[in-house]
Amino acid sequence: MLPIERDVLEKSIGEVGITNLLSATIRQICTLSKALENISEENFVHLELGNPGLPPEAVGIDAEMDALKAGVAGVYPDIAGIKPLKENGSKFVKAFLDLDIPPFCIIPTVGSMQGTFTMMLLLKQRIPEKDTMLFINPGFPAQRNQAKLLGFRTEDFDIYDYRGEKLAEKLESILKSGRVTGMIYSNPNNPAWTNFTDEELKIIGELATKYDVIVMEDLAYLGMDFREYVGSPGKAPFVSSIGKYTDNYILFISASKIFSYAGQRIALVCMSKEVYERKYPFLEKFYEMANFGDCYVYGVLYTASSGTSHSAQYALASMLDAACEGKLDFVGNCSEYGRRAHILKELFKKNGFHIVYSDDDGRDISDGFFFTAAYPGMDSEQLQKELLRFGIATIALPCTGSVQDGVRICVSKVDSDEVFSQLSERLKLFHNEH
Amino acid sequence: MLPIERDVLEKSIGEVGITNLLSATIRQICTLSKALENISEENFVHLELGNPGLPPEAVGIDAEMDALKAGVAGVYPDIAGIKPLKENGSKFVKAFLDLDIPPFCIIPTVGSMQGTFTMMLLLKQRIPEKDTMLFINPGFPAQRNQAKLLGFRTEDFDIYDYRGEKLAEKLESILKSGRVTGMIYSNPNNPAWTNFTDEELKIIGELATKYDVIVMEDLAYLGMDFREYVGSPGKAPFVSSIGKYTDNYILFISASKIFSYAGQRIALVCMSKEVYERKYPFLEKFYEMANFGDCYVYGVLYTASSGTSHSAQYALASMLDAACEGKLDFVGNCSEYGRRAHILKELFKKNGFHIVYSDDDGRDISDGFFFTAAYPGMDSEQLQKELLRFGIATIALPCTGSVQDGVRICVSKVDSDEVFSQLSERLKLFHNEH
Repeated sequence: MLPIERDVLEKSIGEVGITNLLSATIRQICTLSKALENISEENFVHLELGNPGLPPEAVGIDAEMDALKAGVAGVYPDIAGIKPLKENGSKFVKAFLDLDIPPFCIIPTVGSMQGTFTMMLLLKQRIPEKDTMLFINPGFPAQRNQAKLLGFRTEDFDIYDYRGEKLAEKLESILKSGRVTGMIYSNPNNPAWTNFTDEELKIIGELATKYDVIVMEDLAYLGMDFREYVGSPGKAPFVSSIGKYTDNYILFISASKIFSYAGQRIALVCMSKEVYERKYPFLEKFYEMANFGDCYVYGVLYTASSGTSHSAQYALASMLDAACEGKLDFVGNCSEYGRRAHILKELFKKNGFHIVYSDDDGRDISDGFFFTAAYPGMDSEQLQKELLRFGIATIALPCTGSVQDGVRICVSKVDSDEVFSQLSERLKLFHNEH
Repeated sequence: MLPIERDVLEKSIGEVGITNLLSATIRQICTLSKALENISEENFVHLELGNPGLPPEAVGIDAEMDALKAGVAGVYPDIAGIKPLKENGSKFVKAFLDLDIPPFCIIPTVGSMQGTFTMMLLLKQRIPEKDTMLFINPGFPAQRNQAKLLGFRTEDFDIYDYRGEKLAEKLESILKSGRVTGMIYSNPNNPAWTNFTDEELKIIGELATKYDVIVMEDLAYLGMDFREYVGSPGKAPFVSSIGKYTDNYILFISASKIFSYAGQRIALVCMSKEVYERKYPFLEKFYEMANFGDCYVYGVLYTASSGTSHSAQYALASMLDAACEGKLDFVGNCSEYGRRAHILKELFKKNGFHIVYSDDDGRDISDGFFFTAAYPGMDSEQLQKELLRFGIATIALPCTGSVQDGVRICVSKVDSDEVFSQLSERLKLFHNEH
């Protein structure tokens, strides 16, 4: 029965071990929504977890099975990555981002989760005075946990009030301390689905160079700014990237969303050649290795897991190759998320909600994997709880580092007319009661 | 041409970026031996890298391909592990170690490398005063690097002089400070191939309980003490384990060697129920989770890589099941390493070498995956270098934390009569020159 009574909800929150809903992990929210499904005897509409909502690319599965048949399961993968993966990664960033990154600077990781965790570890070590990680929010909550686990000092700000020219002043006010070693953001933004304009990327790039900050650009949703089709290999328009505006960059490209390959935990760290080859006295002494990139591969990644699934590396190598050859239109395939987002946004707006982050420095944002929504007179926690009462699971915006009121909506699992109409009905009930 | 001139060798060591041979990583030694192969135009006998030397178990490959066909690549695996893997892990420790560990305490990791790295991270946090990791040496060099990366204070000692009753006094002299949070060793020992006797395990277990130390038992080579056949599921003799003598234990069981499945990076962390359910004020505050095990799974592992390859979890689940059902005799299959070790040891002994760690508190050690060898009048570095000159790549014992002179020999890649006779010839030449 929906809506669930408020005291029943509060009791369930306590029972699944959540002490603070706003800082709960996404997986704890999933556990909670499952518990509430049992209590209410109703299926929830799951808008909380960012699982892919499309089938994994067949090209990858075929390549992975071939690799298994060939016996790769018995052999440790090269920590630096198998050769075809490094080469095709290099081809891919050229074809879709128009960036030149040599194969030796392309390294596979156990998802971008391992990529950002291990890279933060090394960025924390590179220069003793640089002890701070800067988060341009909102963002992926797990990345802030990574910094916490590593004992980082952090700075952050919400991009909401600092678009366009205002970004320069804000950013410089933080970077001028000299303590920031790296900054991280995702483009398209998780969850706001904003995209930095080229003007903004230029600001970030120039300041990163000026203050020797390494930019970690998380491209988990690469190509999913559907306002322009960027899926033609080797042809403009290309995906905008920080790589055009500074040498101080590291890209994180994951197979999880662009190829719906999240299960195999495979992604790429793509460093600029300049970053790979930089030398730091502390790292040379600590790892007894000559440059930043080698310390990352043979010092950190070796220690963290000795590489990532051998067969999954073949899968990703093949998917990247197929994309570069124009045989796998991953942008077109993922545009299904845009279609779902369009319908969902209309449903929310019809029932009194508005989109929180709706604007890219003067231009409407794209429809895509996530969006943000708010309801008048409710703060984030109230809204998240009230939606739960009506069988709709979301993440509160403060979890993502946002200081706006609202929730994060993931569209990936809303994949049938049945779910659309269930959501429509529940939002109507919600709106009627409030 | 062999032997390689000494000055050519020294030059190559510098060129591959090794500043100190005794602290070089195994992968750096591999790079060096490849460079020397090019220079000498001779294939080296590779006794340095612990790659499996047997084909991966077909049961695993079949299960992994089935899982891929069923679409698991598109879905994030449960961080805590897929249900059949947790259940079969529990069955496996019962069948071969006679230990009762419930499925919720069995968690997959990206190889035991990720298992020990992430577990050390959590052990460092659990009690503020306990800031020290104890290594019972010799051991796997990478684990000491893990502690270094995590900023651990460490203690260690070489087991060589402390077997049997002597172990108690030595161990207590270190533990009584109260600063040790965890201790780690491998059984069979990498590289000494010693095995703690049950009397010694009892000493370790009782002291671990007395001083609240968590024992990390690395069972990478589980079952490969071939002096007794321990491969009959559910029947004595069982594999000896610390789990019989304390509740403060965590086992690390990897598919890499026992199932020759190193390529897919899949292993299990098996905590005692008591360890999983322990509560610590610091962890509760830091992770906002109620017990040690949940902090490990949802706090640390989620942050480190969001789980491990979905399909590889199915592979391991099936191999464990087949072993428990008596359909996969992994102990019998791995006994091939014992055969190779027996031949190799004879070759070394015939040419003036002796086995360094040869004795298990009064009993000859088993033949297995590794052994240790020394040559009169040479320290470890000299011996490693001189063997390289004759086309034989090994690891110097100090890399493993041993304070004895000698080298570590891995037998896995010595898999043909051709390699045996090549090695025999080179050892003869070596012996003649020295």
